[in-house]
Amino acid sequence: MATKAKTAITPTRAENYPEWYQQVVRRADLAETSAVRGCMVIKPWGCALWENYQRVLDGMFKATGHRNAYFPLFIPKRFLEKEAEHVDGFAKECAVVTHHRLEAGPDGGLVPAGELEEPLIVRPTSETIIGDAFSRWIESYRDLPLLINQWANVVRWEMRTRLFLRTSEFLWQEGHTAHATPEEAMEETERMLDVYADFAENWMAMPVITGEKTAGERFPGAVRTLCIEAMMQDRKALQAGTSHFLGQNFAKAQDITYQSEEGRLEHCWTTSWGVSTRLVGAMVMTHGDDDGLRLPPRLAPAHVVILPMTGRAQDPEAVLNYCRKIADDLRVIPFHGRHIEVEIDTRDLRGGEKNWQWVRRGVPIRLEVGERDMAGDSVFMARRDKGHKDKESVDRTAFVSRAHEILEEIQATLYEQAAAFRDANTCEIDSEAEFREYFAAPEGEPTPPHGGFAWAHFCGDEAVEDRINDEMGVTVRCIPCSGGEPGTCIFTGKPSEKRVVWAKSY
Amino acid sequence: MATKAKTAITPTRAENYPEWYQQVVRRADLAETSAVRGCMVIKPWGCALWENYQRVLDGMFKATGHRNAYFPLFIPKRFLEKEAEHVDGFAKECAVVTHHRLEAGPDGGLVPAGELEEPLIVRPTSETIIGDAFSRWIESYRDLPLLINQWANVVRWEMRTRLFLRTSEFLWQEGHTAHATPEEAMEETERMLDVYADFAENWMAMPVITGEKTAGERFPGAVRTLCIEAMMQDRKALQAGTSHFLGQNFAKAQDITYQSEEGRLEHCWTTSWGVSTRLVGAMVMTHGDDDGLRLPPRLAPAHVVILPMTGRAQDPEAVLNYCRKIADDLRVIPFHGRHIEVEIDTRDLRGGEKNWQWVRRGVPIRLEVGERDMAGDSVFMARRDKGHKDKESVDRTAFVSRAHEILEEIQATLYEQAAAFRDANTCEIDSEAEFREYFAAPEGEPTPPHGGFAWAHFCGDEAVEDRINDEMGVTVRCIPCSGGEPGTCIFTGKPSEKRVVWAKSY
Repeated sequence: MATKAKTAITPTRAENYPEWYQQVVRRADLAETSAVRGCMVIKPWGCALWENYQRVLDGMFKATGHRNAYFPLFIPKRFLEKEAEHVDGFAKECAVVTHHRLEAGPDGGLVPAGELEEPLIVRPTSETIIGDAFSRWIESYRDLPLLINQWANVVRWEMRTRLFLRTSEFLWQEGHTAHATPEEAMEETERMLDVYADFAENWMAMPVITGEKTAGERFPGAVRTLCIEAMMQDRKALQAGTSHFLGQNFAKAQDITYQSEEGRLEHCWTTSWGVSTRLVGAMVMTHGDDDGLRLPPRLAPAHVVILPMTGRAQDPEAVLNYCRKIADDLRVIPFHGRHIEVEIDTRDLRGGEKNWQWVRRGVPIRLEVGERDMAGDSVFMARRDKGHKDKESVDRTAFVSRAHEILEEIQATLYEQAAAFRDANTCEIDSEAEFREYFAAPEGEPTPPHGGFAWAHFCGDEAVEDRINDEMGVTVRCIPCSGGEPGTCIFTGKPSEKRVVWAKSY
Repeated sequence: MATKAKTAITPTRAENYPEWYQQVVRRADLAETSAVRGCMVIKPWGCALWENYQRVLDGMFKATGHRNAYFPLFIPKRFLEKEAEHVDGFAKECAVVTHHRLEAGPDGGLVPAGELEEPLIVRPTSETIIGDAFSRWIESYRDLPLLINQWANVVRWEMRTRLFLRTSEFLWQEGHTAHATPEEAMEETERMLDVYADFAENWMAMPVITGEKTAGERFPGAVRTLCIEAMMQDRKALQAGTSHFLGQNFAKAQDITYQSEEGRLEHCWTTSWGVSTRLVGAMVMTHGDDDGLRLPPRLAPAHVVILPMTGRAQDPEAVLNYCRKIADDLRVIPFHGRHIEVEIDTRDLRGGEKNWQWVRRGVPIRLEVGERDMAGDSVFMARRDKGHKDKESVDRTAFVSRAHEILEEIQATLYEQAAAFRDANTCEIDSEAEFREYFAAPEGEPTPPHGGFAWAHFCGDEAVEDRINDEMGVTVRCIPCSGGEPGTCIFTGKPSEKRVVWAKSY
């Protein structure tokens, strides 16, 4: 067991899922906690992963006509005060800058000095400051639609934080758009939800349900909030991205107007949408296993790691050259907007230690290459979608020519496994008793949560939703976008338009 | 003149250089001031330009073995207190977070609440917080060198701000590295200075002098500060990038140690280096003319803009299709890590207004395309390195096949013009009287500055440097890295190792 602790993840998912998650994030070198309460350090492996998220999403945003801009980190207090609901939502948990200097204090330490006339808030989200710019940039219908995205850090003062999932500072993108009609704005809101779903499913290999939030779960100030919801391996839901139709609420609060073709002054219709570094946590919890992270190849910072076994080699340089040749051959193969990326790990470490490090980091393919492999013109291959002992000797040229295909197989396997897990933990529920049983802790299994995704008819009564949440910690994750037939609410017996998705959630 | 104000930049460089600069930044749609004191909004055109800077620099950093990571925005007050010189340098001008909530106040507005036990500083630079991580990450000589870069926003509370050149919040990259020996750390410091010089000269088309700062101009806490210095069109110097050898100062303050191969515990030798959005301002001031911005093609967000003249066309769609064909043909031509980027401007605006907008934005090549051009299978081309009236009809296929070459010509022209300007405003000076005359305001020319780069012998006496700065606003920009012969200080008559570069500066 002492050996196991140094290699695989302790505890396992079954033993303690939340702790398993924290251990994977740390031992896969994704991130760590910092000396600043609730703020994380994103380590190089985690940062490279996030950069891949950014590159792909940024391409999708540009392909749908958006341009990036950058707005101030600070928001004047009076801006937050403009939209009442928005204030309530964000004023409770923000970092407030009150001084602009440190001076030597009486005890020799530094004390804040130079009090600001108006406190500044470190942006928790940028609707208000971007709205201020929009009110200047937009004059006539010719300036619409205005389609802007920002990549930025934001701060929300969180009491209980978890690496990636809930941190006081996080990285994200926030799209902000203004339109002439509610139809166009709603179309944009839906378009960006589809972009997020596409990214989650086809890049992260993470199946999602697209839907709409109930009133109680809406973004503060929004008219409608759409979302994508994924199931983690503890059967809890994770909200992986949101897209908000803001109506004219922010446009009216911030005077975002345009002159129509007919010469009338009208308020714009606006949207906002965002995904964050939380999606890194979602990937860990969707694909990780008891050996660590498993990376979908389309986003992996490295696709293939080559471990030269030179320790007892008669001619270590020849082995290294053989490895370099394989790497060179792989690096010219295109793979989803880049090329197959290869690391050759020549560090002065024990082979087993190195191998386990790459297992934990989730690299899709590992190649062990020693003199015997070189003699046979082969490689000793391990795939991260198979068990860590499942290795096979493969002809070198056959491997190189199949590498792209193997990566696509791994991508597909991860998606299929996640989808199968979700489907196995999803059911239709037709009575409150059945619902309560589904989400109740079974005897002898003390670790929450239980159940999974429960598709049940619901009349939409907010009081019922609140009660179920208070009693059981279960909420409506979304009203699914597609399909569904009318029925009867399992709680009230009133009519229901369609089944909604209930789950415990992050 | 009223017409001119709508097209070219008012005032001209000769009339009022600082105001010309602000106008170019605004009218080229690079950036604007915001409602937050000293913070700017980087508009889409400016953001796209900065993204190109980032892409190229990031590639250079990775090619020299660096990996990106991300560290907290906030720095605990006690961290800043650790390195005395560093505190003095940054405590004076920082944003201090003291509360983590806003609550309804007596007058109905919001007031800060939830006072923090320890104030947090919004990072002005990250040596201290990254050093804290390094002290955990580094155990043995096997972990060295540790080569990390961060792309981030930083805040320095500035009293007098100017878009891009000096803003309270700015975007930058900061490299932080740790090494086993002073030689390796100094080699890294020089390597990154060379990367900056390469970027400035070969991408920004901006000639720079590489050199070392005198003691008074060093980064707070550094042992040596290297820099690149460029000449703006008002003949003032602009520090365009710095690379610091920090010795063991930060390693000792922050306990960054490693176990050597011999088993001894040693302090690391560290470096840091950075460039910022200030480089966007440097580009404006190096290449801009009285018509606006001129972009070096290797960094331009768009290389070619096509203006379809469809207003009086009999078949506007045919003209548009002809334009699209040209764009398609150009977009497959590789150009320095991307492809030739083309905009087709079909906005519902007057042709003259559109044309001037692209002139001001500095796009290297503009093509006006109407029915007559289509009939002749040609394009009407204007190059931004020539006067705005200097347009010529060019055969379409000849243009497409020459486009890459024309862009390289424009890149070279911008560099040559900047180098010629600098050389024309640089001289060797051999006496204090001559020096004073060179930098004094000539009769009837009230607008500073005067002179340019004065290469003069200097003994290095800090008191002399301070006096010259106080009296004339002239400082040593750098002690050049290369060349130089011993001589006699023009101020003290003492021996001088080599000529140093004096100038007024930003």
